[in-house]
Amino acid sequence: MTGHVGTVTAVSTPPGKGGVAVIRVSGDDARAVAEKCFVPRDGKPISAHPPRRAIYGNIILDGEIVDDGLLLYFPAPNSYTGEDVIELSCHGGPLLTGMVLEATLKAGAIPAPAGEFTRRAFLSGKLSLSDAEAIGLAIDAVTPAQVRLSASDSREKLSDAVGELHDRLLALISSLYAGIDYPDEDLADLSPDEVREGIGKIYADLTRLSATYRTGRAIREGIPAVLAGKPNVGKSAVFNRLLGRDAAIVTAIPGTTRDVLEYPLPVGRALLRLADTAGLRDTADPVETIGVERAKKTIGGAEVLLLVLDASRPLEKEDEDLLSLARDFRGLAVLLLNKSDLPAVWGKADLGKGAPPSFWVSAETGAGFDALTEYLSGALTDGNLSLGEDAIVASARQAAALAGACDDLSACLDALERGVPIDAAASLAESALASLSEVDGRTVTGEIVDEIFSHFCVGK
Amino acid sequence: MTGHVGTVTAVSTPPGKGGVAVIRVSGDDARAVAEKCFVPRDGKPISAHPPRRAIYGNIILDGEIVDDGLLLYFPAPNSYTGEDVIELSCHGGPLLTGMVLEATLKAGAIPAPAGEFTRRAFLSGKLSLSDAEAIGLAIDAVTPAQVRLSASDSREKLSDAVGELHDRLLALISSLYAGIDYPDEDLADLSPDEVREGIGKIYADLTRLSATYRTGRAIREGIPAVLAGKPNVGKSAVFNRLLGRDAAIVTAIPGTTRDVLEYPLPVGRALLRLADTAGLRDTADPVETIGVERAKKTIGGAEVLLLVLDASRPLEKEDEDLLSLARDFRGLAVLLLNKSDLPAVWGKADLGKGAPPSFWVSAETGAGFDALTEYLSGALTDGNLSLGEDAIVASARQAAALAGACDDLSACLDALERGVPIDAAASLAESALASLSEVDGRTVTGEIVDEIFSHFCVGK
Repeated sequence: MTGHVGTVTAVSTPPGKGGVAVIRVSGDDARAVAEKCFVPRDGKPISAHPPRRAIYGNIILDGEIVDDGLLLYFPAPNSYTGEDVIELSCHGGPLLTGMVLEATLKAGAIPAPAGEFTRRAFLSGKLSLSDAEAIGLAIDAVTPAQVRLSASDSREKLSDAVGELHDRLLALISSLYAGIDYPDEDLADLSPDEVREGIGKIYADLTRLSATYRTGRAIREGIPAVLAGKPNVGKSAVFNRLLGRDAAIVTAIPGTTRDVLEYPLPVGRALLRLADTAGLRDTADPVETIGVERAKKTIGGAEVLLLVLDASRPLEKEDEDLLSLARDFRGLAVLLLNKSDLPAVWGKADLGKGAPPSFWVSAETGAGFDALTEYLSGALTDGNLSLGEDAIVASARQAAALAGACDDLSACLDALERGVPIDAAASLAESALASLSEVDGRTVTGEIVDEIFSHFCVGK
Repeated sequence: MTGHVGTVTAVSTPPGKGGVAVIRVSGDDARAVAEKCFVPRDGKPISAHPPRRAIYGNIILDGEIVDDGLLLYFPAPNSYTGEDVIELSCHGGPLLTGMVLEATLKAGAIPAPAGEFTRRAFLSGKLSLSDAEAIGLAIDAVTPAQVRLSASDSREKLSDAVGELHDRLLALISSLYAGIDYPDEDLADLSPDEVREGIGKIYADLTRLSATYRTGRAIREGIPAVLAGKPNVGKSAVFNRLLGRDAAIVTAIPGTTRDVLEYPLPVGRALLRLADTAGLRDTADPVETIGVERAKKTIGGAEVLLLVLDASRPLEKEDEDLLSLARDFRGLAVLLLNKSDLPAVWGKADLGKGAPPSFWVSAETGAGFDALTEYLSGALTDGNLSLGEDAIVASARQAAALAGACDDLSACLDALERGVPIDAAASLAESALASLSEVDGRTVTGEIVDEIFSHFCVGK
């Protein structure tokens, strides 16, 4: 149908051992591939079965049965990719799954590169680029909020909001051009003042929408953070307590923005990307022995600084130095007064004026972490925004496109107010319109597409 | 329908990250579970869709959309388990998959224990116990021969062969009883001699069938083996060359019969389970430094001894000691005269009479390994047996049942020849008949069933 260079095949389920594995084939020859490597048990050809209906049969490699399984045939365009697609379900053995993949290759399919199925879905118009990005997020998600942000209703809310702004702007641009083309005939349905006012409103709405990326980024990308404190104040215990409360996956991942390992640490619906401050050489205990020197080095790229202090012992020079770092921190600094289960020898009043917000916690008992999590989540995301209800900008690419539209509209408003020729202002508005089209990926460059799909796994 | 204690749910695809994951639900309430956590996009209820047809829709957890995906509904009895089954396909993110599983749990399903779906398929008569064992093998398979041995045509050949013997024996037993019940009326269609001859033929056929387990075991279970040789003869290089030629999966697995790590090493269609002779403390280089002392300790449980000698250097005392071990080895010993690419300072003639079969090989160039593999495969499996064409006994359980039948028939023949009362002989034949029924698992004890399913993973 769409024919994006050949019929591709890949194992779509995760690698490893399981009950079931799925091999997906997409392209013009998908059914021909199935006919060569799958024999329905009822003896009827695949074409004699209703589409999208599970067919039971044998999977054949080199003329021999390797497994029995199910075949689903999705004729174009009603498939994931928009092309002819077959999905073969076999038993989930790693070698067996490889042999079934081999059967599809010998039947004429070629190996699908990473992300190829979703790329084809995008190229054939089945998915917007925002949809494709959301699918990538759904697969990589480590917090429930990321899953919700990637769900279809969330995508639709943003797409609807951007589409509405796009249509409003398009109508105003039409009015602008009507004024240019027929200046004396008063054909424009809106006065120049009305147009300017309309664009001003769109600009305000766009700015509000753009601002949701603060929340979208905190949920999706996560916020670089660092946990500091002099030795023996309980950093490791605090870290484990934070992870134990919320973490879905406690595995260090290479940092996306800096050359360090990071631990994804959910706090409420936000995600902290906690730097492994011990660097790459000690992943077992990422937060041990962060003194002042280490803290100075590691907080450079952080936007959140969690400073752990031990309130059961007097503050020492090293604590004071770290407090000073926290006071001057350009991002969000929070003080954790740990060991609240022990008698305190100092309190919040001793921290002095201008100290960052502080929370009594006890890594030993877990006390205080609810309030801390709530505070961090509230400080990092907009509590008025509801996932699935409100439009939330979810990716840096979308945010950049919206920022471009904002800039152009701002310049357009300026031009209209300075009384420049209307066609110059209209061209700025048109540029904003083009940027809005980029949010959903209606018009994007090949590089952006390649960048997005380069992060996908094979089989998606 | 069959109602094996509740409606169960599990992720059936391997754990990890992929394009697609499948959550399977089986039991009386499967459709009710689907109706609570899946909303078809076309607005029609699940019951309004044809069964076994892929339905596109949203997956719901706690009233919120977590993903869009496909639902397949297999009404009983036309499903894997024989019960009502639904399969939910979602995007293959580990957290997301867990949330979809949670959605099915909140909709009323309970977590499926390991192997539960296949167990239910067995209990509802959809699969024989041999089928269930074969599915376990398909998932664990590390050689193509294992996959072929687990495929449906191989299972059917064995089932057919056993069934045919069963039916022949049943007919003869009827004749025996006819002779008992109406001794004077000559109602029996076979004479006592004919019955004895018939049972003798069945006994011979059974013995032949039982003998195929030598091949089935070499393919399925693998043969415990050890690679020996004094240091610096090239054991590691030989090991790597053997693995590099044939191995699908080069991962040590806990030995099933001994308390050591083993490397699955395919040689032709047989599988060697090569003991990690360095024990558990050094998995990185399993075959280094096996001298005589080590070899003595490790070959105790082995059935195959591969002794590596360096023919480019004179044999030393340690070589001679190992050769002596190989000569006395109770299993299959093979000498690998390594470094055939270098000038040899001794040859096969120097090994003396009674030496085990020897092969010139070069781990450096790969020369000689084809012949070695072919020899080992031929020595460990019966080359006349063809997978998928011939009945091959595939599991120890089947072999034990057949051995029991053989013993009983042998005793029965003995009884008939000694002229014991016919009803005594008939009861031995009946006992053989019962053993034959066990091969397919028509009549087995609960312990055997539990033992088989205890090896399955969750989701199967």
